[in-house]
Amino acid sequence: MNLNYIQPNSWSIIEEGFNANHVKASESLFSIGNGAMGQRANFEERYSGSSFQGSYIAGVYYPDKTRVGWWKNGYPEYFAKVINAPSWIGINVIVNGIDLDLFTCKKVSDFKRELNMKEGWLSRTFTAILPNDIEVKVETKRFLSLDLDEIGAINYQITPINTSAEIVFQPYIDSNIKNEDTNWEDKFWNTTKVSHENNQAFILAETMKTAFHTCTFMESKLFLNNEKLEKNPEVETNEQQVCFKYTQHVKANETYSIHKFGGYTVDRNHNKNELIIAAKKVLEKATNLGFNGLLQTQIAQWANIWKLADITIEGDVKAQQGIRFNIFQLNQTYLGTDSQLNIGPKGFTGEKYGGSTYWDTEAYCIPFYMATKDQKVARNLLEYRYNHLEKAIENAEKLGFSHGAALYPMVTMNGEECHNEWEITFEEIHRNGAIAFAIFNYYRFTNDYSYIPEKGLEVLIGIARFWQQRSTFSADKNQYVILGVTGPNEYENNINNNWYTNYIAKWCINYALENLEIVSKEHNSDFKRIWDKTKLTDSELSKWKSVAENMYFPFSELNDVFLQQDGFLDKELITVQDLDASQRPINQKWSWDRILRSPYIKQADVLQGFYFFESDFTTEQLEKHFDFYEPFTVHESSLSPCVHSIQAAKLGRMEQAYQFYLRTSRLDLDDYNHEVEEGLHITSMAGTWMSIVEGFGGMRVVNNMLSFQPKIPKQWQSYSFKINFRNQILKVHVCHDGNQFELDGTEELEILVNGESIKIVPNNLIEA
Amino acid sequence: MNLNYIQPNSWSIIEEGFNANHVKASESLFSIGNGAMGQRANFEERYSGSSFQGSYIAGVYYPDKTRVGWWKNGYPEYFAKVINAPSWIGINVIVNGIDLDLFTCKKVSDFKRELNMKEGWLSRTFTAILPNDIEVKVETKRFLSLDLDEIGAINYQITPINTSAEIVFQPYIDSNIKNEDTNWEDKFWNTTKVSHENNQAFILAETMKTAFHTCTFMESKLFLNNEKLEKNPEVETNEQQVCFKYTQHVKANETYSIHKFGGYTVDRNHNKNELIIAAKKVLEKATNLGFNGLLQTQIAQWANIWKLADITIEGDVKAQQGIRFNIFQLNQTYLGTDSQLNIGPKGFTGEKYGGSTYWDTEAYCIPFYMATKDQKVARNLLEYRYNHLEKAIENAEKLGFSHGAALYPMVTMNGEECHNEWEITFEEIHRNGAIAFAIFNYYRFTNDYSYIPEKGLEVLIGIARFWQQRSTFSADKNQYVILGVTGPNEYENNINNNWYTNYIAKWCINYALENLEIVSKEHNSDFKRIWDKTKLTDSELSKWKSVAENMYFPFSELNDVFLQQDGFLDKELITVQDLDASQRPINQKWSWDRILRSPYIKQADVLQGFYFFESDFTTEQLEKHFDFYEPFTVHESSLSPCVHSIQAAKLGRMEQAYQFYLRTSRLDLDDYNHEVEEGLHITSMAGTWMSIVEGFGGMRVVNNMLSFQPKIPKQWQSYSFKINFRNQILKVHVCHDGNQFELDGTEELEILVNGESIKIVPNNLIEA
Repeated sequence: MNLNYIQPNSWSIIEEGFNANHVKASESLFSIGNGAMGQRANFEERYSGSSFQGSYIAGVYYPDKTRVGWWKNGYPEYFAKVINAPSWIGINVIVNGIDLDLFTCKKVSDFKRELNMKEGWLSRTFTAILPNDIEVKVETKRFLSLDLDEIGAINYQITPINTSAEIVFQPYIDSNIKNEDTNWEDKFWNTTKVSHENNQAFILAETMKTAFHTCTFMESKLFLNNEKLEKNPEVETNEQQVCFKYTQHVKANETYSIHKFGGYTVDRNHNKNELIIAAKKVLEKATNLGFNGLLQTQIAQWANIWKLADITIEGDVKAQQGIRFNIFQLNQTYLGTDSQLNIGPKGFTGEKYGGSTYWDTEAYCIPFYMATKDQKVARNLLEYRYNHLEKAIENAEKLGFSHGAALYPMVTMNGEECHNEWEITFEEIHRNGAIAFAIFNYYRFTNDYSYIPEKGLEVLIGIARFWQQRSTFSADKNQYVILGVTGPNEYENNINNNWYTNYIAKWCINYALENLEIVSKEHNSDFKRIWDKTKLTDSELSKWKSVAENMYFPFSELNDVFLQQDGFLDKELITVQDLDASQRPINQKWSWDRILRSPYIKQADVLQGFYFFESDFTTEQLEKHFDFYEPFTVHESSLSPCVHSIQAAKLGRMEQAYQFYLRTSRLDLDDYNHEVEEGLHITSMAGTWMSIVEGFGGMRVVNNMLSFQPKIPKQWQSYSFKINFRNQILKVHVCHDGNQFELDGTEELEILVNGESIKIVPNNLIEA
Repeated sequence: MNLNYIQPNSWSIIEEGFNANHVKASESLFSIGNGAMGQRANFEERYSGSSFQGSYIAGVYYPDKTRVGWWKNGYPEYFAKVINAPSWIGINVIVNGIDLDLFTCKKVSDFKRELNMKEGWLSRTFTAILPNDIEVKVETKRFLSLDLDEIGAINYQITPINTSAEIVFQPYIDSNIKNEDTNWEDKFWNTTKVSHENNQAFILAETMKTAFHTCTFMESKLFLNNEKLEKNPEVETNEQQVCFKYTQHVKANETYSIHKFGGYTVDRNHNKNELIIAAKKVLEKATNLGFNGLLQTQIAQWANIWKLADITIEGDVKAQQGIRFNIFQLNQTYLGTDSQLNIGPKGFTGEKYGGSTYWDTEAYCIPFYMATKDQKVARNLLEYRYNHLEKAIENAEKLGFSHGAALYPMVTMNGEECHNEWEITFEEIHRNGAIAFAIFNYYRFTNDYSYIPEKGLEVLIGIARFWQQRSTFSADKNQYVILGVTGPNEYENNINNNWYTNYIAKWCINYALENLEIVSKEHNSDFKRIWDKTKLTDSELSKWKSVAENMYFPFSELNDVFLQQDGFLDKELITVQDLDASQRPINQKWSWDRILRSPYIKQADVLQGFYFFESDFTTEQLEKHFDFYEPFTVHESSLSPCVHSIQAAKLGRMEQAYQFYLRTSRLDLDDYNHEVEEGLHITSMAGTWMSIVEGFGGMRVVNNMLSFQPKIPKQWQSYSFKINFRNQILKVHVCHDGNQFELDGTEELEILVNGESIKIVPNNLIEA
């Protein structure tokens, strides 16, 4: 744990007291978003201390030219990144000619920030003494509307204490924006027009290369003691900025306020020539409602989300705060209404990982969205990959594969691979397996088979083809091997026969074969269409079968465990516990050379396979592998603790499960990895949800039924969660005395609890 | 073979006819150098076609900030490169107001370039019709003086044909120079002063960061029909240039000439405040001799080099031209007089590989310099590494090693590692072995043991320590393994138990132990000094022994060969011959992914070990390994064919040896790898020399004696070479009828010829 300043609170994230050293961390932690856009919690007024500005628009990215030390054939030409968009939140505040700037104030007191997760807004209050000795009290509130997702609103109130003052609000919009993360210090935005009318201003700007057209806009309303002021601004403009100036003489203890509405219209949703018109329309809707009216819709929308998504934990406020923070941030990042969008590892909270799509979506996020939203959301996430199938085939062709083999990218915005690291990214071909697994997982959970004949089967075929072509027949072993990969554990590179990769490869081929069989029988016209389109032949299927049936898996007789990869036992097998604490985290303390030849595991690798394919193994096997690998695992990936928490719970190791749970749920709040300044770990937050639902709740889908094996950490009095299972909502409440199930739906539901079948009638609390 | 325009000639490199598409290749091939500086064969006059400008000063480098896609701990902060220096060769030529520019001339005829290797100069003649229809004949000659190694001279002559013309020579010096190879487009030079006096001009410029101070200078003399003209120039200067202007009305068929002297004085050799004074001194010496006088010293100096270094081949002019080109370029690059300098893979002929020192020096170059120069030269090359021992210990510390373990850099200018590629560079720890091998090789050849107690033993200790610490005890194998390396074959990365690496690691430890023993007995005061200085203990030596005695070597019982690395037999073992020709070179045609998991070998790896440690193996073992590995070898490294040529000759496969010889000796002249435009492959040229001397000549040092097993390709009538063996010169002449040996020395020399002992009396031709 590296930070400890967030106040425990079950529904809010709260910071009290101003500390300039916390500003960048808080900018991440207090980020707000509405699925269509998001922003770091930068101050509205000028701030001259250290800060990381960030405002992002979903799907608006820039293809940054790849930067490498040594070019290798097969590198993509660019690294796509969601980029810092023009800023609309800024309001300079000038008091008797002096800028309000918390970094230069003589005194800041009663500073409080709150991110209210229940209602979806960010507030800030403080009292400050400016360099000119004027004391002011400030209250701000800001949110990005879920209802009108192109707009956000700010209420900024300032009160001079015991003195009158001339106060100027300077709301502005600004397209002179740089990314902190840029390979070549390119300029990412080209501003084409700056304009204003009355209290509205607009900047048209397009991204370089990708030519996404955007309009950044604002409108302001002024109030004195909540009475609306009819003011026309003085205007200052330059080629990339419009700044309005509203000057007011404010008497002692009077409150001068500005309601600023702003946001983006983009040509993903509008004709590119009508972005200002669209901006005016959304401004009209928002200003008609007013700040408070729009806020009421926000509260209602969030109530609606929480109704299904909330998890309660009694008796452990930090755990409660952690899980809600995770659920809140996931919903701020992705709401599932647009199959062109996906979930970037840092959401809208930073630039790292470029806002691109990783295997995180399939491996971690889909279960959360499946269970807490309409199933259409998970299907949209599957379709995202179906829509990229052609690009995945092109990706594979660039690496020398042929005949429709598909390799999904490790990192992508538009379906093309867009990263610039060979070993840690491209060699992670295991990602292709997670794409197929998500199709299986979706069907298992929703029972909606229609996706497979319509779209999924083509994806499965492309992936099976890849694995067959990527496997090599080893005459020496008389089996198929998979050489030169990086598994989920990125602390190994270019290894041979990563067990997880080989296992999922075999599984993918078998799952494709199985579904070809089903579709041929039950959806024959789809089958014919796909057979022709993909130019499949029986002899190709024989090749697939041969690879799947003769796949090699490294195994240690001595330890009775599958080996993470060939040669794992040659390492110096010192457990993490026996490693001097000063050596950790090894990714900061050790050279890459030393990490690579060490036994240390960044995140679940063999155990990830045991998580996906749990039913293929006995609990004894799981225990043996957990006991073999976890002691070498340093959990330096945000995606590691959740899988271990689930498995520890399954093995009845509740204290260990609880510690892993805390680590995943409060990873960012407590800044375990000392990097929260750079942004939040959004995709791993879905793993936190899994830790409770699948870990403590023991939820699985078994024989087409929901199954639970509820357990509870001793630190908690009770916990509850809800599951949208095939359009009925099951509420699960677990306490030390027993479990309660309650169904919000219309049909009787049969579930398994600790292996016993129980029938649940709607709206009838069942103890089990 | 990609180019075929160089005229066969035994002593010269000749290009006839002007072809703009050949300009960049010829700029490389006709490069000139004198060990202290070098330059590509750029034209003196303006040239607006495609060209790659390059002039380099030995030891003057720039630490370019490392550029990587993904930072890994342990990366060096910079990539050092020898940089393009200010230019002094330029002479704009203006004829009746129009620039002479071969790219824009209406016609160019009788174009001929000659690089005279016997005498060490570059000439160019042509007749050109300018855009204004004036026809001129031009003759130029240029050389970089071996005698005064800070200066070069140009004689530029122009004759208007059948018409008079106003001709202007504009000699200039220019420090507004950019590297083509730069990570961040940094400016590498800071010009501090531009000045001129009479016909002399000077630019003081220093390199950024490293602050090497340099003076670039020039002086010109003008002639009409060989009569000296007393002219004062018009002068144009700016902040980075001085340009003189000498205008002359030239009658039809008269010849107007300029003798331009220019070069560099640098603070490696002079007080940095006296660089202009030093420049004036060397200009005075040179101009006193005059162009022709200085040229005479050049011819004499080269005669002196050839006297010992020449290899003659009768009956095969292309083979003759090839070997002389190789010997010539090696001598242009490094003359061995300065132990602060070393041999960059591209010498002074291009920017790639940064002009830095690689293991090429120890593995390939030292045998050449040992046998063709005074033994002090090889000792200087050894001392270069001794001087970097502290840095090598620091390099190892950065990677987590301790207690004096030394890891020599793969790429260096000043002893620090300075490259930015992990797998292909840093993981090649085998380089450390070549540094130790060179010490062994030097002593074996020279019988000069003094180097070891004085300096070499400390290097051997640091290297042995590294290997002991870098080895891992595998409980599984009950042996020591070396994990996560790249061997000499760079088409494999991060492999385990590379046989070559493991073998040389064991050898290094044993060699260090052996020499500790000898030094303790025979140089006991040195032993005590070193023992104390290095803080050796008996228990540490026991650890070394344990590693050396229990090193693991991958071996295939089935094939009865050592395996290049663990898992080699899992690959799809299709030989190069069975690979479709369209797929080669694989480094251009295949993705890196495909190369890594293929069996294809870039350059000798196991066979490199058989080359170094030949006497550890039987000829039958060599044959078995050659037959196993060569068929998978694509020879896409310039360092590959020579080793294979030597081994094919040893195995009596003369046709194969001859083909490998041609490939190594004419690699650049015929542009086998389609990249000669970027510069020449200097270090591999030493391998060409080895192909003849060690390959065809079969030269070895056996039991402290020179030994030969001469063979001759059927394409040749005879060949001869000379060897400086312990201060006596042995000339070896081989023809199909037999071999002749002749000794230039004072003492009888016992040698072995095909295993038989023969005594050679000085100055007495022996047939054997």
